[in-house]
Amino acid sequence: MHVAAIHEPVQQELAQVEAALEAVRRSEFPRLEGMLEHVLVGGGKRLRPTIALLAGRFGEYRPERLVPLAASIELLHTATLVHDDVIDASETRRGRPTANARYSNMVAVMLGDYMFAHAANLVCRTESLEVVKLFSHTLAAMASGELTQDMSVYQYGQDTLGYFRRIAGKTASLFAASAEGGALIAGAPKEWRAALRSYGENVGMAFQIVDDILDFTGDEAELGKPVGSDLMEGTLTLPALLLMERYPDDNPIKKLFRDKRQEHLAEAIALIQSSDVVDQSYSVARDFRDRAVAALEPLPDTPDRAALIDLADYVLDRRS
Amino acid sequence: MHVAAIHEPVQQELAQVEAALEAVRRSEFPRLEGMLEHVLVGGGKRLRPTIALLAGRFGEYRPERLVPLAASIELLHTATLVHDDVIDASETRRGRPTANARYSNMVAVMLGDYMFAHAANLVCRTESLEVVKLFSHTLAAMASGELTQDMSVYQYGQDTLGYFRRIAGKTASLFAASAEGGALIAGAPKEWRAALRSYGENVGMAFQIVDDILDFTGDEAELGKPVGSDLMEGTLTLPALLLMERYPDDNPIKKLFRDKRQEHLAEAIALIQSSDVVDQSYSVARDFRDRAVAALEPLPDTPDRAALIDLADYVLDRRS
Repeated sequence: MHVAAIHEPVQQELAQVEAALEAVRRSEFPRLEGMLEHVLVGGGKRLRPTIALLAGRFGEYRPERLVPLAASIELLHTATLVHDDVIDASETRRGRPTANARYSNMVAVMLGDYMFAHAANLVCRTESLEVVKLFSHTLAAMASGELTQDMSVYQYGQDTLGYFRRIAGKTASLFAASAEGGALIAGAPKEWRAALRSYGENVGMAFQIVDDILDFTGDEAELGKPVGSDLMEGTLTLPALLLMERYPDDNPIKKLFRDKRQEHLAEAIALIQSSDVVDQSYSVARDFRDRAVAALEPLPDTPDRAALIDLADYVLDRRS
Repeated sequence: MHVAAIHEPVQQELAQVEAALEAVRRSEFPRLEGMLEHVLVGGGKRLRPTIALLAGRFGEYRPERLVPLAASIELLHTATLVHDDVIDASETRRGRPTANARYSNMVAVMLGDYMFAHAANLVCRTESLEVVKLFSHTLAAMASGELTQDMSVYQYGQDTLGYFRRIAGKTASLFAASAEGGALIAGAPKEWRAALRSYGENVGMAFQIVDDILDFTGDEAELGKPVGSDLMEGTLTLPALLLMERYPDDNPIKKLFRDKRQEHLAEAIALIQSSDVVDQSYSVARDFRDRAVAALEPLPDTPDRAALIDLADYVLDRRS
């Protein structure tokens, strides 16, 4: 399935989301405009806005509030990416230099803050204090998730439970807020709202696990970043954690974290690619996808529900 | 006047603000707790919360909403300081190493984001969408102000108008929001609300100008940072701009921006200290203080109004 097929049911509203992002991009500073263009254009899959827009159809459909919500979520997401790239000292993303690499750390910090501020402005346009609260709690969960990740880099002996907790905060919380925010704006009944939140949470978990698998198995050109970049930055993701469980006494990751030599990284990547930890990781991601789909049970069987299921399948099947 | 005298009328509520900040500090991560302690303790003057609390007395007094607002503003302020120190690569603030110097740039970015998120949570506790909107617009104004400043470093030929615009966004906007936020929560009549906003704006301008003067004339121990640090970072503030107007053809700042040599910095500092640009800058700050006090005219003549006037005087008279 191509991502265009996922966008299809909400393509009109997505165009409005792009227009809202474009309005943020058009800034009073010409230099800033180019910088915002650099980070906001460039191949985001717009999965979170798509979820918000679809979720907003279960109840009273209010595009004039849903579009700012969806744009706000994408902007917040982009802002966190820009700051994460500073924090992780990453040099490429989606095949292009990161803001910190292309400009500087200071520019990237400022760009991120600018986008946070405008994301906050956009979410206020939903005119719902409940949605704003959801937004700010999500921001806190994401900040905590990122902190947990970065306080645990190069620490050997992390378990998978810690990993799940970390990606729940860092990634799944924003997917959950996208779905729940849409439901809130639609004034969906409580049961539907909980169902959509759970859907978002589980899709988000599946998304991050697949992201972490692709970091080892993907094609450098398609990924737009070097293979094994997480491990190189000292971040242990599911495939790496499973490999360490498999070979607790002697494994290249242990060696890599001790001396940070490139040859150990290459060895670790090769071992992960050739072992069955990739299949095992996919099976965990598939469980989350299944839970996401099961969560939709209470919702009416509409084309919008089918579109949410397609999106969950896409998250699992994607190659980049 | 000592800052304690300024706090006196609202000391009970300020203690609750400290408790709210303390609650943010007590985090799930023990290491984070120490880092938050480092940036949140350490001698902030709590002027913005004091303004918010005083402004909230002009109308219906609601401490249960005012305290979260005041805490939110202080947290937002601290978050921007932490990010500004990354952006400006500053090493000391209030006599202590900055978060970027003590930990790292990445920790400082994360700490700032964490505080932004919790500031957003706190402002939501005001239960007022209008206050939340004010908060998010202010955040955007501050981000723009910081961007304007940092995009103009080491650029010779900036005029004072650009300087005023910059500090209006960077500093005065949060003072204005503190006063207006208090008025909003109190449900103050429109005229009072406008008066308080204007007061905050003008006090904020005076505050920043005095800050920029003290950067040249203050005592390194009292300031807690090296004298002339703005100029060293390439930022032209009012005293420097006035000096350049005075000596347009040949001055040490021109030379400093050309070759960044330490001797030109020392020469510039000495020239500013010995010339009357300091007096001139103070007279501009005093004008803003006078405008702040005049703005309070429509308000009833209460001890709270007198306290706001005292605060404006303190801003002008302070030595650090």
